[in-house]
Amino acid sequence: MIDTLAHLAFDPNIVNGLQETVSQHSTALIENQFRTDNLWILVAAAMVFIMHLGFSALEAGFVRKKNVVNILFKNAMIIAIGLLTYYAVGFNLMYPTDVEPGGWFSLPSLGLSPGEGDMGTGYGDYTFWTDFIFQAMFAATCATIVSGAVAERIKLNSFLIFSGLFVAVCYPIIGMWKWGKGWLDALGFIDFAGSTLVHSVGGWGALAAIILLGPRLGKYTERGIKAIPGHNLPLAGIGVFLLWFGWYGFNGGSVLNANPEAVSLVFVTTSLSAAAGAVGAFITSYVLFKIHDLSMVLNGILGGLVGITAGADLMSPNEAVIIGLIAGAIIPFSVVFFDRLKLDDPVGATSVHLICGIWGTLAVGIFGSAAGWAQLGNQAIGIAAVGIATFTFAFLLMFLLKKTIGIRVSNKDEERGLDWAEHSMKAYE
Amino acid sequence: MIDTLAHLAFDPNIVNGLQETVSQHSTALIENQFRTDNLWILVAAAMVFIMHLGFSALEAGFVRKKNVVNILFKNAMIIAIGLLTYYAVGFNLMYPTDVEPGGWFSLPSLGLSPGEGDMGTGYGDYTFWTDFIFQAMFAATCATIVSGAVAERIKLNSFLIFSGLFVAVCYPIIGMWKWGKGWLDALGFIDFAGSTLVHSVGGWGALAAIILLGPRLGKYTERGIKAIPGHNLPLAGIGVFLLWFGWYGFNGGSVLNANPEAVSLVFVTTSLSAAAGAVGAFITSYVLFKIHDLSMVLNGILGGLVGITAGADLMSPNEAVIIGLIAGAIIPFSVVFFDRLKLDDPVGATSVHLICGIWGTLAVGIFGSAAGWAQLGNQAIGIAAVGIATFTFAFLLMFLLKKTIGIRVSNKDEERGLDWAEHSMKAYE
Amino acid sequence: MIDTLAHLAFDPNIVNGLQETVSQHSTALIENQFRTDNLWILVAAAMVFIMHLGFSALEAGFVRKKNVVNILFKNAMIIAIGLLTYYAVGFNLMYPTDVEPGGWFSLPSLGLSPGEGDMGTGYGDYTFWTDFIFQAMFAATCATIVSGAVAERIKLNSFLIFSGLFVAVCYPIIGMWKWGKGWLDALGFIDFAGSTLVHSVGGWGALAAIILLGPRLGKYTERGIKAIPGHNLPLAGIGVFLLWFGWYGFNGGSVLNANPEAVSLVFVTTSLSAAAGAVGAFITSYVLFKIHDLSMVLNGILGGLVGITAGADLMSPNEAVIIGLIAGAIIPFSVVFFDRLKLDDPVGATSVHLICGIWGTLAVGIFGSAAGWAQLGNQAIGIAAVGIATFTFAFLLMFLLKKTIGIRVSNKDEERGLDWAEHSMKAYE
Repeated sequence: MIDTLAHLAFDPNIVNGLQETVSQHSTALIENQFRTDNLWILVAAAMVFIMHLGFSALEAGFVRKKNVVNILFKNAMIIAIGLLTYYAVGFNLMYPTDVEPGGWFSLPSLGLSPGEGDMGTGYGDYTFWTDFIFQAMFAATCATIVSGAVAERIKLNSFLIFSGLFVAVCYPIIGMWKWGKGWLDALGFIDFAGSTLVHSVGGWGALAAIILLGPRLGKYTERGIKAIPGHNLPLAGIGVFLLWFGWYGFNGGSVLNANPEAVSLVFVTTSLSAAAGAVGAFITSYVLFKIHDLSMVLNGILGGLVGITAGADLMSPNEAVIIGLIAGAIIPFSVVFFDRLKLDDPVGATSVHLICGIWGTLAVGIFGSAAGWAQLGNQAIGIAAVGIATFTFAFLLMFLLKKTIGIRVSNKDEERGLDWAEHSMKAYE
Repeated sequence: MIDTLAHLAFDPNIVNGLQETVSQHSTALIENQFRTDNLWILVAAAMVFIMHLGFSALEAGFVRKKNVVNILFKNAMIIAIGLLTYYAVGFNLMYPTDVEPGGWFSLPSLGLSPGEGDMGTGYGDYTFWTDFIFQAMFAATCATIVSGAVAERIKLNSFLIFSGLFVAVCYPIIGMWKWGKGWLDALGFIDFAGSTLVHSVGGWGALAAIILLGPRLGKYTERGIKAIPGHNLPLAGIGVFLLWFGWYGFNGGSVLNANPEAVSLVFVTTSLSAAAGAVGAFITSYVLFKIHDLSMVLNGILGGLVGITAGADLMSPNEAVIIGLIAGAIIPFSVVFFDRLKLDDPVGATSVHLICGIWGTLAVGIFGSAAGWAQLGNQAIGIAAVGIATFTFAFLLMFLLKKTIGIRVSNKDEERGLDWAEHSMKAYE
Repeated sequence: MIDTLAHLAFDPNIVNGLQETVSQHSTALIENQFRTDNLWILVAAAMVFIMHLGFSALEAGFVRKKNVVNILFKNAMIIAIGLLTYYAVGFNLMYPTDVEPGGWFSLPSLGLSPGEGDMGTGYGDYTFWTDFIFQAMFAATCATIVSGAVAERIKLNSFLIFSGLFVAVCYPIIGMWKWGKGWLDALGFIDFAGSTLVHSVGGWGALAAIILLGPRLGKYTERGIKAIPGHNLPLAGIGVFLLWFGWYGFNGGSVLNANPEAVSLVFVTTSLSAAAGAVGAFITSYVLFKIHDLSMVLNGILGGLVGITAGADLMSPNEAVIIGLIAGAIIPFSVVFFDRLKLDDPVGATSVHLICGIWGTLAVGIFGSAAGWAQLGNQAIGIAAVGIATFTFAFLLMFLLKKTIGIRVSNKDEERGLDWAEHSMKAYE
């Protein structure tokens, strides 16, 4: 009997060793997943970076030859100022570490100071540095949206001051309301990747700015609205394709890890909505204008992308197609609408980012897994609150600049072009 | 004795717990690998998306100024229509779920309806959504190939109808023959990432279209062949570099997981073949024309890329260099050959995609780990079958369009340019 | 008693099975991490590839219209020749397998022949093919740097011979001194991703070449220095943004695995230094020239990127900002300095890559976790050794070419433009 048992006896060291190894494996498994997740967010950050090139090319293509250096200069400086101010204050304003859920404002510290464990798996699905750089790439996009709308007539210095404060203060405080666990998050407002928090914020800023700036000389005359065509449509086309590419990082990275089902669904809804946006704009622009208008189709793609952004993780492919189709179809009407109001927007930024941003945010209450009247109400509250706050901030800041250093170049400089007036350079020789 | 045993006694809960944890680890390990694999295919899909920008830029650069808006419009609509039709029918035609190995045709359902478990590790190395979006990005490329060949003279509406049906019906059914486990797969035909299934399919479609369309006005005159140079070679250069970049996703993603050895070998063979393609075209174009022809070198790079695509996973680096060198060297001869036949192809799409696609597919029977007479025979059968089917489909469809709504713009519109005739726009101001 | 023990008895097969499974898990965990690491280096390689498009666009934009085809041709051939020569000899020169730490030169074999186990986890954090392709993408960049400086006047054939030998011989031998475990590595010289080994090497080559070539006709006249503006600044802007994007692969991939903290820190320092470079150049160029000079800001971004490259893994965000700010601020002074010396560099390559490369390398001795007088001394030795060796090689090779086939086109060809003289083509119609 004892013999029988004896041959079953075991060496406790083996089990102890196994326990230790298995425990190390548990850690290693989490670390491996963390490594993949973190890598995806970094790659996504690089893709969002490319959107800044997309915006630059799009805006440069849609303005006149004489204002191209100015657009490129503004966009190069916006990403630089955006990254630096987000590093100085924006990141801490948007994601305060002394998080008090439901709050409106907090700035716990300046600069970047990762805490204990912020690089490891305990912090979430990526490191503190990854968190910062992915969010920093988002931050500057809202100022870039303004850049297009105010093109061809704004003073460079006023624009740089405006952008710097808009990105450093306005964007992160409002972003905190939802993504920093503030009051909009507590309310139940949904905005996956920023139809409202990024695109509408940029769009409201653009709207406030163009109201105060006024239209370009000769745009609205007694004999009607004068079309001022962009100088280089291949450049605009390159811009839109690069924006679409970058949006896979923008939306796909907003899953905040590499969860296979979630990220792949977001890729599908984003793609289908962009495609449907092109078709929607193709149809309505043909109905309205009887031509196949490239600018409208390009902006239709962007409209579809902005539209899906609030709920890219919640929609079925069918719903993504409907959202994109409507977003694209809105674009030509919206462009006509703003022109009727004599609000001059050379690149259609308000139509794409503001109007389709609102549409996409509302769509979360209408379609997808979160749809419902209560949700639709929350979405409307979020849209209104963000709209009022952003518009007020942007309007007051622009107004202050207008009354002090001025926001608009002289008529002579506008006619000669900003490239000559502000840069003494020409885009093309 | 009993004491001796007693100190060896163990708590069975420990081993039970270990068993449970180890079993969870087995699952987690598979999930972690799945997460990395799925991520790679998504990133690869985004890279293939960039190829659509590459094609747009290349084609826009190689046509005349007066047809640039048209090219951009077509390419923006192709990716949109391609994604939407692939979502509606193409994906199910190409990868039927009621797979009957060796078959010719099946359409089990419409739209996207993932089954039980299609998001998890049991489905393969990626989710259902990932599978769709990666394949969808491929689908539209073959229509884009046609776009370049028919540039500067085709009617927009006819082209859009043609492209839509080509992508929705022709491409996926033929693709199914190999990649959907159809009869070519059963035969042993090899086409890793689509030298035949994507590039030659596009090339055959282009050939059928340009036969029916006829050459551009003034291309072939009694005094000889008139060179009609592209209007913007930097744009063409950007296009080729972006296509090369996207090809890392096209070929690298076709491994269908992130297997380190396989993906890295594909990166190496793809790179070396592209580089050798440049050198091959450099040499033969200098020999033939006595100039350093940028268009030839750019198309040589593309020829090298198309050439390696069928066997990128099977070749050694040395073999990749040989395949690319020959592909690049073919390009100038092929361009001259098509010109002699008065088949006018403004961007050289038939030379790059059809001729080098055939070469690359044959090369699998000549070089690499699958080489052999039997394989070469299978490759030839696949080339012939795909060629006959695609050419017939494209020719009949184009012929039908020609006899109904017409496929070619009026001479007056061609002379004024399609930008004015179809879009009332100019690419440059 | 025995009964008590009996119910504790266990089946040794269970523990044996567990041991086996756990052992398989240990292997699988390492393989999973290897898979993620390898994937990152491949993605990074593709991003570095995009830098070649960035350089092409930047250089094409900064030269005159009449030399654009030539620039594009050179850049397309450089990446081709670079990849092929690195495959033939460069990789083995730079990472000799018969590594003798502290050595100066070794060429164990020709071509690529992976050894036993070079594809598996034992080899490092990636496969042999990944190692090759990531390094190969780096190799051609240093020749591309030369391309910009010698633009608009060098003979194509001489340039291609120079580039081929520069990439095949000079770059890898000098690179081996540090990255191949040669004498500079043994000394303690630090150069994370190549401020010296890539950028200064390219810069020294450029300097030697432009000394021997002389300035473009009409650049330095009796009445002073004539600005020769670039023909297409949007192209230059696209180039800089793409270079910035690619730098995430260049620096981020130089971690050589996907370590979350290391890669994300590198992304942050790279981003902040680039942003600060824009601001630095913005300020000093305004102070010096009283205009907002787009070329300076674009080169300031590149200066910031080159500057952080030597120590991107060692710096805090604050230090990255300082390094970038200084790098950007240097640019306008450096451009003026080279112009005073009548060293004509159409794109500012020597300022960006040589001067900021030196600055970045010295900065490792001044800032960050490796700072110290001893380190600063090592950095200086490395800079001097690499500078003397590269300059000598490049000068002798260029001198030899000058005395044999000639390196400069005729005055007539220079005036007509290289596009006509060397290619019989025009970039734009």
